[in-house]
Amino acid sequence: MRADARRNRERVFQVAREMFSEDPHSAGMDEIARRAGVGIGTLYRNFPSRIDLIEAIYREDLAALATLADRLIETRNPWDALAEWLLGFARFTESKRAILGELGQAFEANPDLAAQARHQIDSAALKVLTRAHAAGAVRPDVTAPDLIQLVGGFVLFIAADPERTDHLLGVVLDGLRT
Amino acid sequence: MRADARRNRERVFQVAREMFSEDPHSAGMDEIARRAGVGIGTLYRNFPSRIDLIEAIYREDLAALATLADRLIETRNPWDALAEWLLGFARFTESKRAILGELGQAFEANPDLAAQARHQIDSAALKVLTRAHAAGAVRPDVTAPDLIQLVGGFVLFIAADPERTDHLLGVVLDGLRT
Repeated sequence: MRADARRNRERVFQVAREMFSEDPHSAGMDEIARRAGVGIGTLYRNFPSRIDLIEAIYREDLAALATLADRLIETRNPWDALAEWLLGFARFTESKRAILGELGQAFEANPDLAAQARHQIDSAALKVLTRAHAAGAVRPDVTAPDLIQLVGGFVLFIAADPERTDHLLGVVLDGLRT
Repeated sequence: MRADARRNRERVFQVAREMFSEDPHSAGMDEIARRAGVGIGTLYRNFPSRIDLIEAIYREDLAALATLADRLIETRNPWDALAEWLLGFARFTESKRAILGELGQAFEANPDLAAQARHQIDSAALKVLTRAHAAGAVRPDVTAPDLIQLVGGFVLFIAADPERTDHLLGVVLDGLRT
Protein backbone atom coordinates (compact mmCIF):
# COMPACT_ATOMS: atom_id res chain seq x y z
CA MET A 1 0.00 0.00 0.00
CA ARG A 2 1.36 3.46 -0.89
CA ALA A 3 2.10 5.85 1.97
CA ASP A 4 -0.74 8.26 1.09
CA ALA A 5 -3.20 5.38 0.73
CA ARG A 6 -2.14 4.10 4.15
CA ARG A 7 -2.55 7.55 5.69
CA ASN A 8 -6.02 7.85 4.15
CA ARG A 9 -6.99 4.45 5.50
CA GLU A 10 -5.78 5.38 8.98
CA ARG A 11 -7.71 8.64 8.90
CA VAL A 12 -10.89 6.90 7.75
CA PHE A 13 -10.55 4.27 10.49
CA GLN A 14 -9.92 6.90 13.16
CA VAL A 15 -12.93 9.01 12.14
CA ALA A 16 -15.18 5.93 11.79
CA ARG A 17 -14.12 4.56 15.20
CA GLU A 18 -15.07 7.82 16.88
CA MET A 19 -18.38 8.10 15.03
CA PHE A 20 -19.36 4.45 15.64
CA SER A 21 -18.74 4.93 19.37
CA GLU A 22 -20.54 8.24 19.71
CA ASP A 23 -23.43 8.22 17.28
CA PRO A 24 -23.35 5.36 14.78
CA HIS A 25 -26.59 6.48 13.07
CA SER A 26 -24.93 9.68 11.88
CA ALA A 27 -21.92 7.78 10.60
CA GLY A 28 -22.92 7.44 6.95
CA MET A 29 -20.22 6.84 4.33
CA ASP A 30 -20.55 10.44 3.03
CA GLU A 31 -20.00 11.92 6.48
CA ILE A 32 -17.07 9.60 7.23
CA ALA A 33 -15.39 10.57 3.92
CA ARG A 34 -16.02 14.28 4.57
CA ARG A 35 -14.60 14.25 8.10
CA ALA A 36 -11.61 12.12 7.07
CA GLY A 37 -10.89 14.45 4.13
CA VAL A 38 -11.03 11.55 1.68
CA GLY A 39 -12.93 11.47 -1.63
CA ILE A 40 -16.19 9.51 -1.44
CA GLY A 41 -15.13 7.60 -4.58
CA THR A 42 -11.92 6.47 -2.90
CA LEU A 43 -13.82 5.40 0.21
CA TYR A 44 -16.33 3.30 -1.77
CA ARG A 45 -13.54 1.78 -3.88
CA ASN A 46 -11.90 0.44 -0.73
CA PHE A 47 -15.09 -0.32 1.21
CA PRO A 48 -18.09 -1.00 -1.05
CA SER A 49 -20.45 -0.80 1.98
CA ARG A 50 -20.54 0.40 5.57
CA ILE A 51 -20.47 -3.26 6.68
CA ASP A 52 -17.18 -3.75 4.80
CA LEU A 53 -15.71 -0.78 6.65
CA ILE A 54 -17.01 -2.07 10.00
CA GLU A 55 -15.52 -5.50 9.27
CA ALA A 56 -12.10 -4.04 8.28
CA ILE A 57 -11.94 -1.98 11.48
CA TYR A 58 -13.06 -4.98 13.53
CA ARG A 59 -10.26 -7.12 12.06
CA GLU A 60 -7.68 -4.43 12.79
CA ASP A 61 -8.96 -4.07 16.39
CA LEU A 62 -8.82 -7.85 16.89
CA ALA A 63 -5.21 -7.90 15.70
CA ALA A 64 -4.44 -5.03 18.08
CA LEU A 65 -5.84 -7.06 21.02
CA ALA A 66 -3.49 -9.91 20.13
CA THR A 67 -0.52 -7.51 19.82
CA LEU A 68 -1.46 -5.92 23.14
CA ALA A 69 -1.24 -9.32 24.88
CA ASP A 70 2.25 -9.95 23.44
CA ARG A 71 3.50 -6.47 24.35
CA LEU A 72 2.14 -6.66 27.92
CA ILE A 73 3.72 -10.07 28.44
CA GLU A 74 7.11 -8.61 27.52
CA THR A 75 6.83 -5.43 29.57
CA ARG A 76 4.60 -6.07 32.60
CA ASN A 77 4.49 -8.44 35.56
CA PRO A 78 1.98 -11.30 35.19
CA TRP A 79 -0.81 -9.65 37.19
CA ASP A 80 -0.51 -6.21 35.57
CA ALA A 81 -0.38 -7.78 32.11
CA LEU A 82 -3.66 -9.60 32.81
CA ALA A 83 -5.32 -6.51 34.29
CA GLU A 84 -4.23 -4.22 31.45
CA TRP A 85 -5.23 -6.68 28.77
CA LEU A 86 -8.69 -6.99 30.32
CA LEU A 87 -8.98 -3.20 30.26
CA GLY A 88 -8.03 -3.30 26.57
CA PHE A 89 -10.66 -5.99 25.98
CA ALA A 90 -13.28 -3.89 27.81
CA ARG A 91 -12.45 -0.85 25.60
CA PHE A 92 -12.58 -3.02 22.46
CA THR A 93 -15.98 -4.42 23.48
CA GLU A 94 -17.32 -0.96 24.34
CA SER A 95 -16.33 0.34 20.92
CA LYS A 96 -18.52 -2.37 19.31
CA ARG A 97 -21.54 -1.83 21.57
CA ALA A 98 -23.38 0.60 19.28
CA ILE A 99 -22.73 -1.39 16.08
CA LEU A 100 -23.52 -4.92 17.34
CA GLY A 101 -26.40 -5.26 14.87
CA GLU A 102 -24.15 -4.49 11.91
CA LEU A 103 -21.38 -6.73 13.24
CA GLY A 104 -24.00 -9.48 13.43
CA GLN A 105 -24.71 -8.88 9.72
CA ALA A 106 -20.97 -9.11 8.96
CA PHE A 107 -20.84 -12.42 10.88
CA GLU A 108 -23.81 -13.74 8.89
CA ALA A 109 -22.31 -12.71 5.55
CA ASN A 110 -18.97 -14.19 6.58
CA PRO A 111 -19.41 -17.08 9.04
CA ASP A 112 -15.64 -17.51 9.51
CA LEU A 113 -15.34 -14.02 10.99
CA ALA A 114 -17.14 -14.85 14.26
CA ALA A 115 -15.14 -18.04 14.74
CA GLN A 116 -11.87 -16.22 13.97
CA ALA A 117 -12.76 -13.40 16.37
CA ARG A 118 -13.59 -15.83 19.14
CA HIS A 119 -10.33 -17.69 18.50
CA GLN A 120 -8.15 -14.55 18.48
CA ILE A 121 -9.74 -13.17 21.65
CA ASP A 122 -9.55 -16.50 23.50
CA SER A 123 -5.92 -17.02 22.46
CA ALA A 124 -4.87 -13.57 23.66
CA ALA A 125 -6.78 -14.02 26.95
CA LEU A 126 -5.24 -17.47 27.41
CA LYS A 127 -1.70 -16.09 26.94
CA VAL A 128 -1.96 -13.49 29.69
CA LEU A 129 -3.97 -15.86 31.90
CA THR A 130 -1.55 -18.81 31.60
CA ARG A 131 1.34 -16.57 32.65
CA ALA A 132 -0.66 -15.17 35.58
CA HIS A 133 -1.65 -18.73 36.61
CA ALA A 134 1.99 -19.85 36.51
CA ALA A 135 2.94 -16.93 38.75
CA GLY A 136 0.13 -17.82 41.18
CA ALA A 137 -1.32 -14.33 40.73
CA VAL A 138 -4.83 -15.37 39.67
CA ARG A 139 -7.42 -17.89 40.92
CA PRO A 140 -6.51 -21.29 39.50
CA ASP A 141 -10.17 -22.12 38.72
CA VAL A 142 -10.63 -19.25 36.25
CA THR A 143 -10.53 -19.98 32.49
CA ALA A 144 -10.05 -17.68 29.49
CA PRO A 145 -13.76 -17.96 28.53
CA ASP A 146 -14.61 -17.00 32.14
CA LEU A 147 -12.65 -13.75 31.72
CA ILE A 148 -14.39 -12.97 28.42
CA GLN A 149 -17.83 -13.74 29.89
CA LEU A 150 -17.29 -11.64 33.04
CA VAL A 151 -15.86 -8.55 31.33
CA GLY A 152 -17.73 -8.80 28.02
CA GLY A 153 -20.91 -9.39 30.02
CA PHE A 154 -20.98 -6.22 32.06
CA VAL A 155 -19.74 -4.06 29.16
CA LEU A 156 -22.49 -5.29 26.82
CA PHE A 157 -25.27 -5.46 29.45
CA ILE A 158 -28.51 -3.79 28.29
CA ALA A 159 -28.46 -1.21 31.08
CA ALA A 160 -24.65 -0.80 31.10
CA ASP A 161 -23.31 2.56 32.25
CA PRO A 162 -20.05 3.27 30.33
CA GLU A 163 -18.93 5.55 33.16
CA ARG A 164 -18.76 2.51 35.46
CA THR A 165 -16.51 0.36 33.25
CA ASP A 166 -13.22 1.02 35.09
CA HIS A 167 -14.93 0.66 38.47
CA LEU A 168 -16.65 -2.64 37.59
CA LEU A 169 -13.44 -3.99 36.07
CA GLY A 170 -11.78 -3.21 39.42
CA VAL A 171 -14.41 -5.30 41.24
CA VAL A 172 -13.93 -8.21 38.82
CA LEU A 173 -10.13 -7.97 39.12
CA ASP A 174 -10.40 -8.13 42.92
CA GLY A 175 -12.48 -11.28 42.50
CA LEU A 176 -9.89 -12.81 40.15
CA ARG A 177 -6.89 -12.17 42.38
CA THR A 178 -5.61 -15.01 44.58
CA MET B 1 -59.58 -17.00 42.58
CA ARG B 2 -61.09 -20.43 43.29
CA ALA B 3 -58.78 -23.12 44.62
CA ASP B 4 -58.93 -25.25 41.45
CA ALA B 5 -58.33 -22.18 39.25
CA ARG B 6 -55.31 -21.31 41.38
CA ARG B 7 -53.98 -24.88 41.12
CA ASN B 8 -54.41 -24.79 37.34
CA ARG B 9 -52.60 -21.49 37.13
CA GLU B 10 -49.72 -22.81 39.22
CA ARG B 11 -49.44 -25.95 37.05
CA VAL B 12 -49.48 -23.88 33.85
CA PHE B 13 -46.77 -21.55 35.22
CA GLN B 14 -44.61 -24.44 36.36
CA VAL B 15 -44.82 -26.25 33.02
CA ALA B 16 -44.27 -23.02 31.05
CA ARG B 17 -41.25 -22.04 33.16
CA GLU B 18 -39.58 -25.39 32.46
CA MET B 19 -40.38 -25.27 28.76
CA PHE B 20 -39.25 -21.64 28.34
CA SER B 21 -35.92 -22.48 29.98
CA GLU B 22 -35.28 -25.68 28.06
CA ASP B 23 -36.71 -25.24 24.59
CA PRO B 24 -38.92 -22.17 24.20
CA HIS B 25 -39.65 -22.90 20.53
CA SER B 26 -41.49 -26.08 21.43
CA ALA B 27 -43.49 -24.29 24.13
CA GLY B 28 -46.64 -23.53 22.13
CA MET B 29 -49.90 -22.88 23.99
CA ASP B 30 -51.29 -26.29 22.97
CA GLU B 31 -48.29 -28.13 24.34
CA ILE B 32 -48.29 -26.09 27.57
CA ALA B 33 -52.01 -26.85 28.12
CA ARG B 34 -51.47 -30.54 27.37
CA ARG B 35 -48.54 -30.96 29.74
CA ALA B 36 -50.25 -28.96 32.49
CA GLY B 37 -53.43 -31.04 32.12
CA VAL B 38 -55.53 -27.92 31.52
CA GLY B 39 -58.08 -27.38 28.75
CA ILE B 40 -56.80 -25.24 25.89
CA GLY B 41 -59.96 -23.11 26.15
CA THR B 42 -59.25 -22.37 29.81
CA LEU B 43 -55.64 -21.48 29.00
CA TYR B 44 -56.62 -19.05 26.22
CA ARG B 45 -59.37 -17.52 28.37
CA ASN B 46 -56.76 -16.57 30.99
CA PHE B 47 -53.90 -15.80 28.60
CA PRO B 48 -55.09 -14.72 25.14
CA SER B 49 -51.53 -15.06 23.77
CA ARG B 50 -48.17 -16.57 24.63
CA ILE B 51 -46.88 -13.06 25.36
CA ASP B 52 -49.62 -12.61 27.99
CA LEU B 53 -48.51 -15.83 29.66
CA ILE B 54 -44.85 -14.78 29.53
CA GLU B 55 -45.75 -11.41 31.05
CA ALA B 56 -47.82 -12.99 33.86
CA ILE B 57 -44.97 -15.35 34.78
CA TYR B 58 -42.47 -12.49 34.58
CA ARG B 59 -44.55 -10.41 37.01
CA GLU B 60 -44.82 -13.33 39.43
CA ASP B 61 -41.04 -13.94 39.24
CA LEU B 62 -40.35 -10.24 39.87
CA ALA B 63 -42.55 -10.33 42.96
CA ALA B 64 -40.71 -13.45 44.13
CA LEU B 65 -37.37 -11.61 43.84
CA ALA B 66 -38.73 -8.86 46.09
CA THR B 67 -40.08 -11.41 48.59
CA LEU B 68 -36.74 -13.23 48.53
CA ALA B 69 -34.92 -10.04 49.56
CA ASP B 70 -37.30 -9.52 52.51
CA ARG B 71 -37.04 -13.13 53.62
CA LEU B 72 -33.21 -13.19 53.43
CA ILE B 73 -32.96 -9.96 55.40
CA GLU B 74 -34.96 -11.57 58.21
CA THR B 75 -33.14 -14.88 58.24
CA ARG B 76 -29.53 -14.37 57.09
CA ASN B 77 -26.53 -12.29 58.07
CA PRO B 78 -25.93 -9.24 55.83
CA TRP B 79 -23.30 -10.87 53.62
CA ASP B 80 -25.17 -14.16 53.11
CA ALA B 81 -28.40 -12.28 52.36
CA LEU B 82 -26.62 -10.32 49.62
CA ALA B 83 -24.92 -13.41 48.18
CA GLU B 84 -28.11 -15.51 48.18
CA TRP B 85 -30.20 -12.73 46.66
CA LEU B 86 -27.65 -12.35 43.85
CA LEU B 87 -27.88 -16.08 43.22
CA GLY B 88 -31.68 -15.71 43.04
CA PHE B 89 -31.27 -12.81 40.63
CA ALA B 90 -28.88 -14.89 38.48
CA ARG B 91 -31.43 -17.75 38.32
CA PHE B 92 -34.24 -15.30 37.49
CA THR B 93 -32.16 -13.77 34.68
CA GLU B 94 -31.17 -17.20 33.36
CA SER B 95 -34.82 -18.24 33.16
CA LYS B 96 -35.50 -15.25 30.84
CA ARG B 97 -32.49 -15.79 28.59
CA ALA B 98 -34.28 -17.88 25.96
CA ILE B 99 -37.38 -15.64 25.82
CA LEU B 100 -35.71 -12.20 25.76
CA GLY B 101 -37.17 -11.43 22.34
CA GLU B 102 -40.71 -12.06 23.53
CA LEU B 103 -40.12 -10.17 26.77
CA GLY B 104 -38.98 -7.28 24.58
CA GLN B 105 -42.34 -7.48 22.76
CA ALA B 106 -44.16 -7.43 26.10
CA PHE B 107 -42.14 -4.33 27.10
CA GLU B 108 -43.05 -2.63 23.82
CA ALA B 109 -46.76 -3.43 24.17
CA ASN B 110 -46.68 -2.28 27.78
CA PRO B 111 -44.00 0.37 28.37
CA ASP B 112 -44.65 0.51 32.11
CA LEU B 113 -43.58 -3.12 32.50
CA ALA B 114 -39.87 -2.48 31.82
CA ALA B 115 -39.79 0.52 34.17
CA GLN B 116 -41.63 -1.46 36.87
CA ALA B 117 -39.28 -4.40 36.48
CA ARG B 118 -36.23 -2.19 36.72
CA HIS B 119 -37.68 -0.51 39.81
CA GLN B 120 -38.58 -3.78 41.58
CA ILE B 121 -35.18 -5.33 40.87
CA ASP B 122 -33.25 -2.21 41.90
CA SER B 123 -35.29 -1.85 45.11
CA ALA B 124 -34.69 -5.44 46.14
CA ALA B 125 -30.97 -5.17 45.34
CA LEU B 126 -30.75 -1.91 47.27
CA LYS B 127 -32.36 -3.46 50.35
CA VAL B 128 -29.84 -6.28 50.67
CA LEU B 129 -26.97 -4.00 49.64
CA THR B 130 -27.79 -1.22 52.12
CA ARG B 131 -27.81 -3.72 54.97
CA ALA B 132 -24.51 -5.25 53.81
CA HIS B 133 -22.99 -1.75 53.50
CA ALA B 134 -24.11 -0.86 57.03
CA ALA B 135 -22.46 -4.03 58.32
CA GLY B 136 -19.24 -3.19 56.46
CA ALA B 137 -19.47 -6.52 54.62
CA VAL B 138 -19.36 -5.16 51.06
CA ARG B 139 -17.20 -2.58 49.21
CA PRO B 140 -18.61 0.88 49.95
CA ASP B 141 -18.20 2.02 46.32
CA VAL B 142 -20.59 -0.58 44.91
CA THR B 143 -24.14 0.48 43.95
CA ALA B 144 -27.31 -1.56 43.31
CA PRO B 145 -27.09 -0.93 39.53
CA ASP B 146 -23.46 -2.17 39.69
CA LEU B 147 -24.68 -5.49 41.13
CA ILE B 148 -27.34 -5.84 38.43
CA GLN B 149 -24.86 -4.98 35.67
CA LEU B 150 -22.18 -7.40 36.93
CA VAL B 151 -24.44 -10.40 37.49
CA GLY B 152 -27.02 -9.72 34.75
CA GLY B 153 -24.10 -9.11 32.38
CA PHE B 154 -22.35 -12.44 32.64
CA VAL B 155 -25.63 -14.41 32.75
CA LEU B 156 -26.95 -12.78 29.55
CA PHE B 157 -23.60 -12.67 27.70
CA ILE B 158 -23.84 -14.01 24.12
CA ALA B 159 -21.39 -16.82 24.75
CA ALA B 160 -22.54 -17.50 28.33
CA ASP B 161 -22.09 -21.02 29.65
CA PRO B 162 -24.93 -21.76 32.12
CA GLU B 163 -22.73 -24.38 33.81
CA ARG B 164 -20.38 -21.57 34.92
CA THR B 165 -23.01 -19.38 36.62
CA ASP B 166 -22.30 -20.44 40.21
CA HIS B 167 -18.55 -20.29 39.63
CA LEU B 168 -18.63 -16.81 38.04
CA LEU B 169 -20.95 -15.54 40.77
CA GLY B 170 -18.33 -16.74 43.26
CA VAL B 171 -15.66 -14.65 41.49
CA VAL B 172 -17.90 -11.56 41.50
CA LEU B 173 -18.77 -12.09 45.19
CA ASP B 174 -15.06 -12.27 46.07
CA GLY B 175 -14.62 -8.94 44.27
CA LEU B 176 -17.54 -7.38 46.16
CA ARG B 177 -16.37 -8.43 49.60
CA THR B 178 -14.47 -5.88 51.71
